[in-house]
Formats: sequence, C-alpha cells, structure tokens
Amino acid sequence: MAAAIADMKELDPPVRLLMGPGPSDVPPRVLRAMAHPLVGHLDPTFVTILMEIRILLQAVMKTQNEMTLAISATGSAGMETLMTNLLEPGDKAIVGVNGVFGGRMAEVASRCGAEVIKIESPWGEPILPEQVQDALKKAGKVKLVGVVHAETSTGCRSPIEDMGSIVHDAGALFCVDAVTSLAGIDLRVDEWGVDALYSGTQKCLSCPPGLSPVTFSPRAMEVIKNRKHKCQSWYLDIGLIANYWGEDRMYHHTAPISMLYAIREALRLVMEEGLEARYARHKAMHEKLKAGLEEMGYEFIVKPQYRLPQLNTIRFKDGIDEAAWRKRLLNEYNIEIGAGLGVLKGKVWRIGLMGASCTPNHVNTLLSALRDLEK
Amino acid sequence: MAAAIADMKELDPPVRLLMGPGPSDVPPRVLRAMAHPLVGHLDPTFVTILMEIRILLQAVMKTQNEMTLAISATGSAGMETLMTNLLEPGDKAIVGVNGVFGGRMAEVASRCGAEVIKIESPWGEPILPEQVQDALKKAGKVKLVGVVHAETSTGCRSPIEDMGSIVHDAGALFCVDAVTSLAGIDLRVDEWGVDALYSGTQKCLSCPPGLSPVTFSPRAMEVIKNRKHKCQSWYLDIGLIANYWGEDRMYHHTAPISMLYAIREALRLVMEEGLEARYARHKAMHEKLKAGLEEMGYEFIVKPQYRLPQLNTIRFKDGIDEAAWRKRLLNEYNIEIGAGLGVLKGKVWRIGLMGASCTPNHVNTLLSALRDLEK
Repeated sequence: MAAAIADMKELDPPVRLLMGPGPSDVPPRVLRAMAHPLVGHLDPTFVTILMEIRILLQAVMKTQNEMTLAISATGSAGMETLMTNLLEPGDKAIVGVNGVFGGRMAEVASRCGAEVIKIESPWGEPILPEQVQDALKKAGKVKLVGVVHAETSTGCRSPIEDMGSIVHDAGALFCVDAVTSLAGIDLRVDEWGVDALYSGTQKCLSCPPGLSPVTFSPRAMEVIKNRKHKCQSWYLDIGLIANYWGEDRMYHHTAPISMLYAIREALRLVMEEGLEARYARHKAMHEKLKAGLEEMGYEFIVKPQYRLPQLNTIRFKDGIDEAAWRKRLLNEYNIEIGAGLGVLKGKVWRIGLMGASCTPNHVNTLLSALRDLEK
Repeated sequence: MAAAIADMKELDPPVRLLMGPGPSDVPPRVLRAMAHPLVGHLDPTFVTILMEIRILLQAVMKTQNEMTLAISATGSAGMETLMTNLLEPGDKAIVGVNGVFGGRMAEVASRCGAEVIKIESPWGEPILPEQVQDALKKAGKVKLVGVVHAETSTGCRSPIEDMGSIVHDAGALFCVDAVTSLAGIDLRVDEWGVDALYSGTQKCLSCPPGLSPVTFSPRAMEVIKNRKHKCQSWYLDIGLIANYWGEDRMYHHTAPISMLYAIREALRLVMEEGLEARYARHKAMHEKLKAGLEEMGYEFIVKPQYRLPQLNTIRFKDGIDEAAWRKRLLNEYNIEIGAGLGVLKGKVWRIGLMGASCTPNHVNTLLSALRDLEK
C-alpha cells in the first residue's frame, strides 16, 4: 500500500470538453473563485456571501421565496430535501415517471413512508398536464405532485408551466426537478405556481457539482411548519437549515465554503449574460448541432416541441458499436458525451450543450470529430 | 434586486488565520488541485482518482476496510450515513453524550426510529470504557454503540481505544465520530475494533469542507446487507454508494469532483508528512500554545490526559467580554478562533491548531495578538 501511495503523483487529469449530461465545462472565473483561501463558515463575510447567493438564486429561479438556498450536497440530495421535508409517513404523492429521475423521485418519496402513485410516460415523451389532472381526480387527498422539468436521461422537457394551477386546485403542492433546466431554458417558479424546486450546479450553471439549489414557497414552508413528525433527515431538515441561512446564523453544519464561492461566481456569470440571452444561446447552439447531426443521418428521440436544447438525445445508427465510438471520442479527441441510461442503454447518445459547454466551438469540434469517425 | 446584484463584485474575502474549530487553513497545493478543470464523474481518469482516495483514506484511518470512501456531503452527513445505514426502526443504540456532537448523534439515531440510550458525561469530560460497559449490561440487546473520539465542542478526547472489545463482547457495532481527530491524534480503526467511522475534511486534513470520509468494517457491511427495511436515505444508502465507488461504477449521483481533487491532495500531504510526525507536530504546537496561554493566566477546561492538542478550550477570564475580544481578533488581526457552544457559550474560547493551522507562526501570532489585547 505504501508503494502505491508513493506512486500517486500530482493531480494531472486530461483536459476534456465536457459535452455529456453534466458536469459541463467550468469557466476559469468560477475555478478561480473556488480556489480562494477560505474564511470561516460563521465569519460575517461569509454570511454576506450566503445572502448574495440567495438573491442571485432568487433571480435565476424567478422567485421571491425567502426560503431559497443551496443545500450542502449534490442535486439528488436536493430531491431528498424536498421529499423528506414535505412528506410524512402515510401521505400520498403523485410522481411523473418518464425516465431515470422521475423514477428516482418516486423511490425517494416511498423511502419517506409515502404512498406513491406514478404517472408514467414512455421514455423520451413528456408528462402532460392532462395526465396530472387525471391522476389527481382518481387519487383522493394528495400531499404533493412531483414532476421532472427536464429529464436528464432522455432530453425531454415536460410542460410544467400549465401544471401548477391544476395541482393547487386539488390542494396539493407542486414540486419540480429543475436539475438540468435551471439557467438553460425558461423557468419561472412564482409565475408557474411551483411550491418547491431543486436543481444542481453542474449543468447549465457551469459550476462544479457539490450543491443543490432549492426553493420553497411560503405555502410549502407552512406545510413543513405543521409537520406531525420530525423530518427523518437531520442533515436535510429545512427548518434547521433555514436558521443557519437566516439572520441568526444558528450553527447547523459546516457549509462547503469553497463550493459556495464557486456558485456565487457562476450565478454572477449567468446574470451578467442575462437569462433570456442565455436561453437564446442554448437554443441557437442546439439548432446548429441539430443541423450538423441530421446531415449525418442522426435522429432525435424527442419530438421537436419537447426537445431540450441543452441535452440532445440521438438514436445511434444501426451497426455501429456506440460504446466504442464514445471511447474513441474520449481517448482520441478528449470529448465526453453521455451514454444511454436504463432502457436507452446502448441505443442513444446524450450530447450536452450546457452553460460554458454551449458554444459554437464545442458544436463544431464535436461535429468534426464525428465526421472523422464516420470516414 | 437587480441593483443589488449589480453591486456584487468579484469575490474578495479577507485572508484569515483560521484557528477556530474548523475550517482550518488550506494549503495552496490543495486549493490548486481543487481548481483544476473537471473531468466527468464517470471518466476512467476519475475512477482511478476515487480508487487512490480510497487507498489514501485506508492509510490515514489505519484500516483495511474495503468500504472506505468519501460521502458527498459534509461531516454531519457522514454521521447520518452511519446511523441511517446501521439502524432500523426499533433497534437500540447507546450513544455517548459529552458535548454538542454526541447530542447530535443521539438525535440523528432517534430520527432513524431507534431507541437511544444516552451515556452522559459533563461537558469537558470524556466518555469512559466503564460507562460503556455499564450501559451495555443494563440495556439488553443493542445494535450499536456510538462515541465521539474528539468532541469539537469541548476539546475533550474520549479513550475509545479500550472500547471496541467491550462493545463487541456485547454483540454490538462500535461507531466512532472522528471528525476532529482524524490525522491530528492517534487513531487506529482496525486495531481498536471500530466498525464504522465518519470524519470531516476541514479539520486536521486541512481540506475545504464538503466531504465526509467514512469506513465500514466487513461486520458492519454484513449488518447492512441483512437489513429488513431499505435505508431511509437514498442519497446516503451505502449499498448504492458502494456500487458507485466499486468496480462496476454504477451511476448513483454525480460526485463533487472538485472536492475529491482537493481531498486527494490533502491526503497526499498527510502521507508525505507521515502520520506519526503529524501527530507529534500537533502535540508540540499544543505545548507551545499552552505555555503561552498559561503564562497569561488562561486555564484549560479539560484534564491534561484527555486534552486534544488540535482543539484547545480555555476558560475565559472573568470580567472580560469574550465576544468583544473575539471580534477584535477577527477584525484587527484577521484571526478566527471559536466561541463556546451550548452550556459553554460565553465562557470559553476554542482555539484550533489543525493541519496547516498548526505551525509555530500561528501560535506566535495568536499569542502576540492576545498580549496586545491584554495591554
């Protein structure tokens, strides 16, 4: 073992173009902010930084929710934060499942002791408002409805903008997975009636993974305040975390300071570009990639109106070993793209154009490399 | 709000000397490794890095446990990982409580549905093997015994080296909180019969907060394998995480890549120095600090044989507003030290000498500043 350790040299990983389903390329400004020497997590300077991050997140999420902050763990912990805080044993939850992450949300909800009713759509197709309506009619009293806005496993967008009022009419809370959508496509928490939402940092925010931005509406906070049982997770207990992010600065856990330095800078970059300009860039680069891929005969698995510009899932051509080609892209061209997951394994590629990985040069470099392989 | 965002300039926090209970100063090599551009979390290069981190953690923890890895969240999530994976509803757990973190462990265990029996010692005093023995005799069938090795809220070490066999004789698992002890004082997982242990990165490892190193013995893994119920946390489910860190590289969640770059470098630094040399350095700097503090009339609250060299808790002099002095140290000298927590609030200071914050210059700088204030 000692010998093996002596062989471990200075970190020197290859420089990749990250064009998979996340992480995306991280801008130098974000890396530099992350590498700044640390202040303590109770330092008045750090409290100011947390308050700034809250304001930036509110702007990027388009919400006035006071309870907007970054959970000290990755996106899936954000999912768990919503479910463990909003659900209690015996509650009923409706979850849309049209890919890996809807399935994960159903699993996490059931581990909270909830009865989970799944709305299912085939992989690559959206969850539709009428499906939510139907499920609510049949289900009786429901605590929450959870839908994935941008399904990272398929590249499909579900039209959540029309679901909030349906869910509210049934007296339930509307919960959204925005891991891959935030800062890449239109997302309006308040206007769309979203009660609770989680995201990740390593997708369209172009920040390293390690935090999960979340937001809770006053309505959701009221539900949490009136819980009968304590939240089963201490680490993700939003009541305790709220005190840490609040004026009192009550010690809960030690925040991942460097990650918060990073997200602050990543969010500043988003706001400097402007949300609408950022959405437009993602759309334009998607069109450019699409034109090139279709010229080579690749087909998208998602219908145009539900396609995510930031995550392009294409059916792989028959007769070619997709894994071998992916490996060549990585080893010969330093380009990472994503494989298919679950039922799509071996059948599709997932090409990410997220944040800093969404540039004409990324698109051209990938298309050129693919043309090389096609020769 | 737009105006407020426009006012947020480039990150420029003050440069502090971190001499509180963590985070400690982070060496430039660690900051630089953390800032390296990212590879994907399923990249073969990254898999190698994870395997290296496992080997380094095994060496620093002195264990052969295969199931040794870093949880993708901070130390308290490591605590929750142990409890949620090892406990099931109705299980009995004995937890030593002699400060904040023992109390937290009891709380987390009870949120897992366990019946928790507390062994209590006054704050500043250790949990002793005979207390564990007595509690086990009275308790009947117990699933686990949890003890904090180095209580961060008081600066007290509990002599865990003599507890493993007592716990095993009663057929229970021995769980240890090593957040503040790892790489600062002697710790031998295998030799001492520790079945499960969690730590943090921002103490004696001198790495930014954001990960929790954990280890599980084969005996603990057997208990996890034979659980009747699923782990209530999906994010911390060690069965799922094991597959992610294992040969198959089964996708679970996106690892916080940059934090793992950082811990790899921090662990390399520990091994370059050597564990015994590192323990000796912590002890020597503690002696130096102690001599200076005692000269000024400060007293330690912990008896010499249980004192942590890396966390020095001193009773504050009567008639001085400790908060005002702490504030002056921060604002005039850029030195962070820790306040008292819980029953010790307003009564003590906690002075950390951890990892890169454990140097003669740190000690001298603090003592000199204190002498200035005493004038």
